[in-house]
Amino acid sequence: MRKIIIGVMGAGEGATANDCENAYKLGELIAQAGWILLTGGRNVGVMEVASQGAKSANGLTIGILPGNQADGVSEAVDIAIITDMGNARNNINVLSSHVVIACGMGAGTASEISLAVKANKATILLNNDTQTQAFFRKLSPENLYIVESVEEAITTVKAILAKN
Amino acid sequence: MRKIIIGVMGAGEGATANDCENAYKLGELIAQAGWILLTGGRNVGVMEVASQGAKSANGLTIGILPGNQADGVSEAVDIAIITDMGNARNNINVLSSHVVIACGMGAGTASEISLAVKANKATILLNNDTQTQAFFRKLSPENLYIVESVEEAITTVKAILAKN
Amino acid sequence: MRKIIIGVMGAGEGATANDCENAYKLGELIAQAGWILLTGGRNVGVMEVASQGAKSANGLTIGILPGNQADGVSEAVDIAIITDMGNARNNINVLSSHVVIACGMGAGTASEISLAVKANKATILLNNDTQTQAFFRKLSPENLYIVESVEEAITTVKAILAKN
Amino acid sequence: MRKIIIGVMGAGEGATANDCENAYKLGELIAQAGWILLTGGRNVGVMEVASQGAKSANGLTIGILPGNQADGVSEAVDIAIITDMGNARNNINVLSSHVVIACGMGAGTASEISLAVKANKATILLNNDTQTQAFFRKLSPENLYIVESVEEAITTVKAILAKN
Repeated sequence: MRKIIIGVMGAGEGATANDCENAYKLGELIAQAGWILLTGGRNVGVMEVASQGAKSANGLTIGILPGNQADGVSEAVDIAIITDMGNARNNINVLSSHVVIACGMGAGTASEISLAVKANKATILLNNDTQTQAFFRKLSPENLYIVESVEEAITTVKAILAKN
Repeated sequence: MRKIIIGVMGAGEGATANDCENAYKLGELIAQAGWILLTGGRNVGVMEVASQGAKSANGLTIGILPGNQADGVSEAVDIAIITDMGNARNNINVLSSHVVIACGMGAGTASEISLAVKANKATILLNNDTQTQAFFRKLSPENLYIVESVEEAITTVKAILAKN
Repeated sequence: MRKIIIGVMGAGEGATANDCENAYKLGELIAQAGWILLTGGRNVGVMEVASQGAKSANGLTIGILPGNQADGVSEAVDIAIITDMGNARNNINVLSSHVVIACGMGAGTASEISLAVKANKATILLNNDTQTQAFFRKLSPENLYIVESVEEAITTVKAILAKN
Repeated sequence: MRKIIIGVMGAGEGATANDCENAYKLGELIAQAGWILLTGGRNVGVMEVASQGAKSANGLTIGILPGNQADGVSEAVDIAIITDMGNARNNINVLSSHVVIACGMGAGTASEISLAVKANKATILLNNDTQTQAFFRKLSPENLYIVESVEEAITTVKAILAKN
């Protein structure tokens, strides 16, 4: 009965235009695949845009919020989980996702990828430079997937889910 | 866009037959009202039965799990949020619910009602003795609603939502 | 090597004069016994006064703070643990204490006693009415100790520690 | 009254001999400087050895443990904070430290440095390769200090504390 949840992690205020374009498309394709989208839930950056993308394809969206109220939640989030855990909620983001996709990078995202690696969670890196790729590859020789496009990210999710 | 979430809290292994009967009916009526059911997600007691009730009416069910994996999740949970926070996840249960319903009592449930009171969250007590009612009434003169039946609980949720 | 930590829980802004008088004396006697005092760390109510009492007897004081900075920490706290977990930090308060003493009552305190009961932690109730005593006695027939004075609380801590 | 806490982060089971040698010396010098040592508290790797180093110089040691009991706590930990938060406790590690020192690297350490950067916490990297240094330098142009020896780490802590 448990549904498949795909987490999309990425910067908030610091997200680039390219990250946001990718995040929208990721959200859209995740919804089209019948999966639930999980993000950090705030109304900025990758979280906001990925959720919009998922809603554009009639998907279901979960936002795991850092504060103690729904203030600042994206309007494209259906299910707001209010944690009051600050950035410690990043651990919930990755543990609750069947597969984690990092769309761009930032300090919060880096903590999420690190925590995902620590939990042996399959993790996909999209739109990162070779230095970042090499850093996380060294941390996780086996559960890290480096992709070059949104489409390849989705294909990789399908392969990971088929394997598990 | 944010959907209404109603939390049903109650004992796991220690739930009484009466609590379980109420929990099933609560889940069913919550789903019929178009709300999402949130529980502690485990496959025992009030959590399990409330989720089954909601699924019997084609509702959507969220389980906020204490462990670091989905082990022990109820099969009637659609969306498993994996917190790895043990009983500290009880705070997430209440903060994420628009209204909290306590169906019976236990140590975990008592912590949830207390945390709900602390967060000024509207909370409904169902199927509790007068001593328990009096204890929580004293803690929360204003946000605590004491009801005598599942139907009255649902009517009370509607009144609370209409007011907010 | 691990030192003995005694947790004193109680209301912040809502603490009564009687609670505060007891809390000061508890802190003092805990320090004199050579134990470390743990509280919720804020500069109000039982937390503040218990920490002052412990410092008056040259004790060591730990404060487990709810916020993401040391703002609002009691000046009588030596070791500030910054959790950024809001009231979910109450679970850390009780898990980290060898014995928990509730000095008065409030919603936060009620959550702490409930979480202590859930964790099978020895818990002492001081200065509570018979209704409150009866409520928690029912939740915990075995690990709850009801005392009438600060001195009896300390004697009870010693008996619990001797048993474990 | 609040005492200075210096956090030493590093791998557990995966710590190298070099990391452990550095960690012992860090613990020793932190204690000699009159600061409290904070680690993840477990009885392996950098956590264990740093705590031993601090105790060898009569320092005070705090361990922030991931589990719900003191199982697996280092015998060189004086104050065991039991979080039951799994790796989400890493956020507490960095928020509670006035300065964070990463001694070597691993997935957990990477999450701690990332969370420290996110919280604008002064962070020192010791014994890391240039790739790792460059990755975190990019995340934190301003609060990251890269050092080549234990002595330089301690000098850097002093400079940071003097500035704040």
